[in-house]
Amino acid sequence: MDVDQKPGALVIIGGAEDKTGDCAVLREFVRRAGGIQARIAVLTAATSQPREVGEDYIRLFERLGAESIQVINTEYSEDGDRQEAVEVAEQATGFFFTGGDQARIIELVKGTRVDKAIRERHAKGAVVGGTSAGAAMMPDTMITEGDSATNPRVNVVDMGPGMGFLPGIVVDQHFSQRGRLGRLIAALVQQPVILGIGIDEDTAVLVDGDEFGVVGQGAVTVVDESAATHNNLQGLLKDEGLAVCGVKLHILTQGYRFNIKTRQPIVPEAMIQPPAVVPV
Amino acid sequence: MDVDQKPGALVIIGGAEDKTGDCAVLREFVRRAGGIQARIAVLTAATSQPREVGEDYIRLFERLGAESIQVINTEYSEDGDRQEAVEVAEQATGFFFTGGDQARIIELVKGTRVDKAIRERHAKGAVVGGTSAGAAMMPDTMITEGDSATNPRVNVVDMGPGMGFLPGIVVDQHFSQRGRLGRLIAALVQQPVILGIGIDEDTAVLVDGDEFGVVGQGAVTVVDESAATHNNLQGLLKDEGLAVCGVKLHILTQGYRFNIKTRQPIVPEAMIQPPAVVPV
Repeated sequence: MDVDQKPGALVIIGGAEDKTGDCAVLREFVRRAGGIQARIAVLTAATSQPREVGEDYIRLFERLGAESIQVINTEYSEDGDRQEAVEVAEQATGFFFTGGDQARIIELVKGTRVDKAIRERHAKGAVVGGTSAGAAMMPDTMITEGDSATNPRVNVVDMGPGMGFLPGIVVDQHFSQRGRLGRLIAALVQQPVILGIGIDEDTAVLVDGDEFGVVGQGAVTVVDESAATHNNLQGLLKDEGLAVCGVKLHILTQGYRFNIKTRQPIVPEAMIQPPAVVPV
Repeated sequence: MDVDQKPGALVIIGGAEDKTGDCAVLREFVRRAGGIQARIAVLTAATSQPREVGEDYIRLFERLGAESIQVINTEYSEDGDRQEAVEVAEQATGFFFTGGDQARIIELVKGTRVDKAIRERHAKGAVVGGTSAGAAMMPDTMITEGDSATNPRVNVVDMGPGMGFLPGIVVDQHFSQRGRLGRLIAALVQQPVILGIGIDEDTAVLVDGDEFGVVGQGAVTVVDESAATHNNLQGLLKDEGLAVCGVKLHILTQGYRFNIKTRQPIVPEAMIQPPAVVPV
């Protein structure tokens, strides 16, 4: 695939994507990266087991027929500036960030020569994808860590600088599976950002310009705080519960799309016409 | 306390209420039931350990100073019609349903003479409270069981007849702690009901006429489906994900109120005026 002159898609996966069956989510990543002509660079910065995880994704992307797959291992702090790594990045049509700890991606990749090469390639059409920690890092301000299965509180979520591929949005992952509505709302109430996206496991958001689509088994929960009429952040102590009124929620499944600019969900054509019922 | 001629409050507790510290939630139940003049009947139908659980609540309510506490044990199917049990119910100013399995409350209490006595007393002002299963049973159609930590799907929640003290609303409990947004939305989409209330642990909804207030450590998540613009229920297969657009969400903490009829949250006075900041 020759890369275009418009930015490539983002494939943001909520973690635990299917790796043994149809691999619907990873399949979509490879397709966007050029299908059987895809040249994929796997970024293992997030994981503490870069060799094993890297080899897993090499096997997976090979099975799906990518033309080439190379791992950019940034285990040591100088690795992100190594010439060989930069050359791999400069050739790639798709970048895949594995799971692990999103803080390691910022620490080991952000600001390196590899990072610069990824951004140049992305600007020309290369796809940037990631799962779990590789999803969390997408915004300009990311959730670095937090509590699951809690109501929103000030102290249940820590934020920090992300990679900034998807600015102005808060992304959370393993969303329904870990009960993370509370921490996503806590993040939104504390940030000057009004749109949060909670991505379930084995589910991806495919961002293309101002719109994204949903692929996979689970749901994408869009939390739109723009119409919220009230919150109690001012004067709150750190262990007290956050209250917020008038948040808008959309739960989107495969085939649904969403316009990030207008904050409107787009219902698939087939769902607008109710299915015809055959008379008995 | 002499009971009034208007129905008593409902004290609906999301489970795991504090029993060793300040007991803020149980304290509120006893206060509503008449404080040191409260005559409390503890209904242990839901639990498989009625003696132990009954004795625990006797000790708790004694500690909080209720005038009398008696357990109505409905272990066997005829127990709900026993004359002694009916007499206890007829004297009570507050009824407390313990946790366990909400289906047992319907099976062992609904339609019995004790049930009739509870309703007569409630109509005259006696309080009806319950925790966990004792909260779930409040609506006319209740969640009998379901999956936690999942996106909404048709097959993640089973519904059945409840006790009907709070008609027209779906109640879920252990809400944030078990990640139950998905099952509450799945219940709402499948029921001709538009308002769902997810109550956290150690947190209670106090219903008084058309309004309820929030007490306790956690949050009450109000899910208002009345403004939803779309769902994909029609034609959906049972293992597919439910999509729904335009749901309204309020997360309310202690001191917030909500009008069930108008579906409007009521912000505490103290929160409308931002706290004054002392100049430095």
